[in-house]
Amino acid sequence: MVSDSDKGTASVDRRTMIKTGGAAAALLAPAVAKAARGDADQAAVLKTIDANRDAAVQRLADWIKLPSIAAEKRNIDEGVAHMIALAQDAGFQTAKAIPTGGVPSVLATLDSGAKHWIGVYFMYDVKQFDPAEWSSPPLEARLVDRPGLGKVMVGRGAVNQKGPEMTFLAAVRAFKDSGRKLPVNIALIAEGEEEIASPNFPKAISHPDVLPILQKCVGVFIPSASQAMDGTSTLTLGAKGAVELQLISSGERWGRGPTKDIHSSNFARVDSPAWRLVQALDTLMKPDGHTIAVDGWYDNVLPLSAREKALIAETAKRTSEDEVKRQLGVKRWINDESWVQALERLASQPTINIQGLVAGYTGPGGKTILPHRAVAKMEFRLTPAMTKEEAIAKFNAHLKKHGFDDLEVEITGGYGPTITNEDSALVRSEKAVMERLGVAYTIIPRSAGSWPGVVFSGPPLNLPAAQWGMGHGSGAHGPDEYFLIDSANPKVMGMAEASKAYVALLYEIAKQAAIRA
Amino acid sequence: MVSDSDKGTASVDRRTMIKTGGAAAALLAPAVAKAARGDADQAAVLKTIDANRDAAVQRLADWIKLPSIAAEKRNIDEGVAHMIALAQDAGFQTAKAIPTGGVPSVLATLDSGAKHWIGVYFMYDVKQFDPAEWSSPPLEARLVDRPGLGKVMVGRGAVNQKGPEMTFLAAVRAFKDSGRKLPVNIALIAEGEEEIASPNFPKAISHPDVLPILQKCVGVFIPSASQAMDGTSTLTLGAKGAVELQLISSGERWGRGPTKDIHSSNFARVDSPAWRLVQALDTLMKPDGHTIAVDGWYDNVLPLSAREKALIAETAKRTSEDEVKRQLGVKRWINDESWVQALERLASQPTINIQGLVAGYTGPGGKTILPHRAVAKMEFRLTPAMTKEEAIAKFNAHLKKHGFDDLEVEITGGYGPTITNEDSALVRSEKAVMERLGVAYTIIPRSAGSWPGVVFSGPPLNLPAAQWGMGHGSGAHGPDEYFLIDSANPKVMGMAEASKAYVALLYEIAKQAAIRA
Repeated sequence: MVSDSDKGTASVDRRTMIKTGGAAAALLAPAVAKAARGDADQAAVLKTIDANRDAAVQRLADWIKLPSIAAEKRNIDEGVAHMIALAQDAGFQTAKAIPTGGVPSVLATLDSGAKHWIGVYFMYDVKQFDPAEWSSPPLEARLVDRPGLGKVMVGRGAVNQKGPEMTFLAAVRAFKDSGRKLPVNIALIAEGEEEIASPNFPKAISHPDVLPILQKCVGVFIPSASQAMDGTSTLTLGAKGAVELQLISSGERWGRGPTKDIHSSNFARVDSPAWRLVQALDTLMKPDGHTIAVDGWYDNVLPLSAREKALIAETAKRTSEDEVKRQLGVKRWINDESWVQALERLASQPTINIQGLVAGYTGPGGKTILPHRAVAKMEFRLTPAMTKEEAIAKFNAHLKKHGFDDLEVEITGGYGPTITNEDSALVRSEKAVMERLGVAYTIIPRSAGSWPGVVFSGPPLNLPAAQWGMGHGSGAHGPDEYFLIDSANPKVMGMAEASKAYVALLYEIAKQAAIRA
Repeated sequence: MVSDSDKGTASVDRRTMIKTGGAAAALLAPAVAKAARGDADQAAVLKTIDANRDAAVQRLADWIKLPSIAAEKRNIDEGVAHMIALAQDAGFQTAKAIPTGGVPSVLATLDSGAKHWIGVYFMYDVKQFDPAEWSSPPLEARLVDRPGLGKVMVGRGAVNQKGPEMTFLAAVRAFKDSGRKLPVNIALIAEGEEEIASPNFPKAISHPDVLPILQKCVGVFIPSASQAMDGTSTLTLGAKGAVELQLISSGERWGRGPTKDIHSSNFARVDSPAWRLVQALDTLMKPDGHTIAVDGWYDNVLPLSAREKALIAETAKRTSEDEVKRQLGVKRWINDESWVQALERLASQPTINIQGLVAGYTGPGGKTILPHRAVAKMEFRLTPAMTKEEAIAKFNAHLKKHGFDDLEVEITGGYGPTITNEDSALVRSEKAVMERLGVAYTIIPRSAGSWPGVVFSGPPLNLPAAQWGMGHGSGAHGPDEYFLIDSANPKVMGMAEASKAYVALLYEIAKQAAIRA
């Protein structure tokens, strides 16, 4: 979910923070060299990254060939073992499975004797795929030339998130291989159920082997290939939460209507669970079609701060509304609002979305049945300071109040919103490294997409949590997912350059954490 | 549609009109013989039916092996040619295709020089099928032993309607083969789009070669294997009409929302066609979930007559409410009404049913999309004196009044209700033959299911139109559809016996028509 939510929203909300003259990456080598000046350790590490390039690419390919898919219960044990081996190989001193009740997580630690700890979040699972849709087989991890971009690796998980994660591991391993000490200690927590909305990940976090180590951290980040084709990046200060659910109307639970699909002529004398679903759904939404009619839904929705509004106004100025509308296939925003208003809505408004409707006959044409069951696949998007528990409780109370409590609410996963303090050591470090590397970036006050960062940013950890990383890739959840290995575009970093950026980030975090967390 | 609608509704609404001592079919041979007494012609014809038995079974098998399916445009030309050949083979003097703008109909005439004409309606198309679901291949027309029932032919179209139709053709052919003259002239009109709700059949009826010949008829019937496993039959005095449609909400037509599925985070700023469909649907139905909220929908709904109420009360007395509820998987009728009230509703109330809902993601679990399109598959059931045109116009006016006229209403087929005068020569003949054959039967004032009989019973023909026929079969539209060939059950007629019943019917129609139409 991490990637799908940020592609297509973040990629169009970019703002050039630094005038780069369009040659950000061209500045990289001297910029990194400058950052490392007087630091022989860092220079040795960066050199080792180059020497290790081929092995890192091979390790990524091997990982892609082993897809762990929680929804299909595919390669669970193998995925855990592989994740542990990858961490050990990169130099982590401990690495072990953490039981969650579902697919296990993996905790790995690397204590270099530094003063501060940084947390890193991985997902080792990938989204399902249909090989028939791919131009290059999804599990072969082929290297393919993309004109104007460079050599990319095509495969399921290439960008979401094995590519960025392996890029980070290559940075860590380079410390080991060059015999240098990491400037910060690292606690790596990897989960195997991200693609099913992390139903058990909070259990991993609260595990007695995990919580104490994460509590030491100054923040947690997830590696991410955040550069667009023009080299610009984004820095998001949080994300909406998401709760996935199915709202199910059935004759069985209702005690009315049929308990199997029956001939539709019977609707003259038998109640209809499909109409009941329609009626229940319609109570949830005001006539405008987007304002949620659930009592108290907006009680804890925080208005945008002045800083958030200023950041959005800046994004609105520097991005093309027409281009975004074209990409989305949209002619008008809700209420025919302006571009700024649409961006403010995207950042600030909770939603109750219908992802899908399924009832009775769904094939071509019609079929004369009275369905016994009707399902709305839905999701809530939650904004600060809403919580998952609050949203579910209010939703259930609404159904009860309107007499629809026979409908089943099946929560399949979810988490609350992530809020990251812009003044934290983590965010200050992210900004500092991008500025030093000459990477233009946009600050997004809140991603409208979602990731389970709230397990870090919420209680009990209350840590800054963010996605960060250089490099490029695309196609998360779709066919021909890819990750850029060797860049032919001077504005965009390849895998080795992106690994070097993580080295810079780790040094910067050590420096910023020493100032203040 | 003919068969699926009457199985499961009619089969449980039976009323024993004649005390038979449970041995109706045992009386058949002597009864038929009695009917034919003093009539050498009829005796010769009946004898020929027995002689022709094997050839008729083979002809049915050959027909099943050639499935014409309008929805799949499968075997259209071949189906027309085969229908023409079958009619010619049975002794019809003329047989030709009638253009309809869609799949052609076939008109065949047999003028024996009799005083009266009877119309017969055939469908030569069949429903789609999935061979994987069948225990005997659907196009092999295998003869299979069914314990307690006898030898049945299994195949798509076996009972709906090739079996009953071939049974009737065998009766007609027996006149030719025995060199006897039919007591009535026959106009046979066969359509090839019944399973897609007869969208073009009215054009065939109004064709200048068809209309004049049908106008001569005293009525029209469709052959039907109406006997239940206990040998009882039904006599229906009409049927509800049905209109099949899809109600489609799309970003394209609306001019709001997306024109392709996009990431669901966008629902914060982009309107949702799925919620719009929900809102439009909810305006159609009153809060009770079954009363239609469309202006004027009930204006032309005729109340049940005293005779209809009496027939229903009789059915209620003689049938098991518990058994019907068990078969349907239903605990309560609408409004917790009584058995009589439920049967009255079934006969008298128009419906707007949701057959299916399809929007966005319909697979397992969820998917974070905002769908650009949402569809409700629906059907209206119409009671006298509603018309198809009236219902469609009121439905469209309703959508417009509520501001939902951007939703597309795609009518895929339909027709109004059929009303058949109980005192017509056709119905009097049906009753007389069943009474003479000792077949117990129930009179259903109105089938809740539908068939396009209105093309005959409505203007411009205004003819009595009914389904009639002895014999047994089941599984219309489902797997392992079958038709009884050789009965091992003394209460139920096999194919040859059912052919003989048609001979009796043709003689009776000649007799009754001579009294009054």
